[in-house]
Amino acid sequence: MTELGKLGKLYGLGIGPGDPELLTLKAHRILTTVPVIAYPTLENGKVFARGIVAEFIRPDQIEIPMPLPFSVKRSSQPHYDMAAANIAEHLSAGRDVAVLCLGDPMLYGTFMYIFNRLSGGFSVEVVPGISSVMASAAMLGVPITYRNDVFAIMPATLEAEILRDRLSVVDAAAIIKLGRHFAKVRQILDELGLLDRALYIERATLPNQKIIPIREVDPAAATYWALILIPSQTKPQ
Amino acid sequence: MTELGKLGKLYGLGIGPGDPELLTLKAHRILTTVPVIAYPTLENGKVFARGIVAEFIRPDQIEIPMPLPFSVKRSSQPHYDMAAANIAEHLSAGRDVAVLCLGDPMLYGTFMYIFNRLSGGFSVEVVPGISSVMASAAMLGVPITYRNDVFAIMPATLEAEILRDRLSVVDAAAIIKLGRHFAKVRQILDELGLLDRALYIERATLPNQKIIPIREVDPAAATYWALILIPSQTKPQ
Repeated sequence: MTELGKLGKLYGLGIGPGDPELLTLKAHRILTTVPVIAYPTLENGKVFARGIVAEFIRPDQIEIPMPLPFSVKRSSQPHYDMAAANIAEHLSAGRDVAVLCLGDPMLYGTFMYIFNRLSGGFSVEVVPGISSVMASAAMLGVPITYRNDVFAIMPATLEAEILRDRLSVVDAAAIIKLGRHFAKVRQILDELGLLDRALYIERATLPNQKIIPIREVDPAAATYWALILIPSQTKPQ
Repeated sequence: MTELGKLGKLYGLGIGPGDPELLTLKAHRILTTVPVIAYPTLENGKVFARGIVAEFIRPDQIEIPMPLPFSVKRSSQPHYDMAAANIAEHLSAGRDVAVLCLGDPMLYGTFMYIFNRLSGGFSVEVVPGISSVMASAAMLGVPITYRNDVFAIMPATLEAEILRDRLSVVDAAAIIKLGRHFAKVRQILDELGLLDRALYIERATLPNQKIIPIREVDPAAATYWALILIPSQTKPQ
């Protein structure tokens, strides 16, 4: 095979929740050696993922911003199609491409939309990352689960009834993507008697991280980058 | 305050699922700079956690093995009491101590037993780690969850009825701590029609990692260090 015929490799790099030191050694190695780096950007100009690893990126690395729609009401499909085509061009030319993924690539990530478009034609390696859920528990200083506990991660975007049902059958939970759904979630936690156990944290591990007693959170100010952790009540010995 | 009066800091270091490169930059920094390192060992001589980071440990670092009972039928309490007392001695003498934790310290970890004994008297910092659940999804090359999915982590040690009930109300799941519970779990997955979706992986990210089609797994050979992943069926676009 000629060098021209050699395809590049696609990496899904979990870069963790925000603190650059929470990259793994492996993600750091790949990030600092690939010729091409791709990352999602929002149409409103926010570039969260790149900011986390900015200190590690060299001027000679090619960067591919992947614009995604800011509103959930608009389809992301054409945006992912375009990003995948752009990435595929570099892979076809033999250049490895690392796609930056907040948290872990396989857990509610945007990487899977690129993954599903390109894994048929190219070699893909996924590097797991620290999820904001585990990072939040570490920052809050509270163990999530012990021994035989069942632990669930659920998005606040779900209907109230589904959230209530799922929360009532698990020992510990993390409710993610709070944003404008905070008031609904708070009401459900109150109904289930979980409000005293629930902990609220915003932007875990970032310099502007906030931990707020849940009864004092302003529903209008709750961000998408916040989660509620309900730790297990199991008493360890 | 005199130097003698200064207490050491206790670190709970998530060291990930097995591949040493899956340590975070932060865990690596702390591991290579603390004067004292503690880690669980089993009475049968197995020292899993230390093996993962062996290449990073220097001869001048003090090591504290923490023997834990091999059988779940014997109480671990006196073992944790002794380990905590041992660690407290170093902290009281002003030496920082890092306790190695497989995966993430807050998720089904042994660190919380040390944490609960010492967090009242000493400063504690927890460094999150890559959970075997996310690492397994990366190795299997399969996204776990999309958008509004509910994802649950549950131990195979639970009663069949509880496992069945919890599995039937979530979109994706990881069943951990399989070992001698494999046959029970396989039967439940069959009853729920989940067997075709279920993926089995042993010792994810370690050199002896094994991925076996679930119908070919020998129940007698399933290890504690195996898990079953049931990825979401949501079709992303």
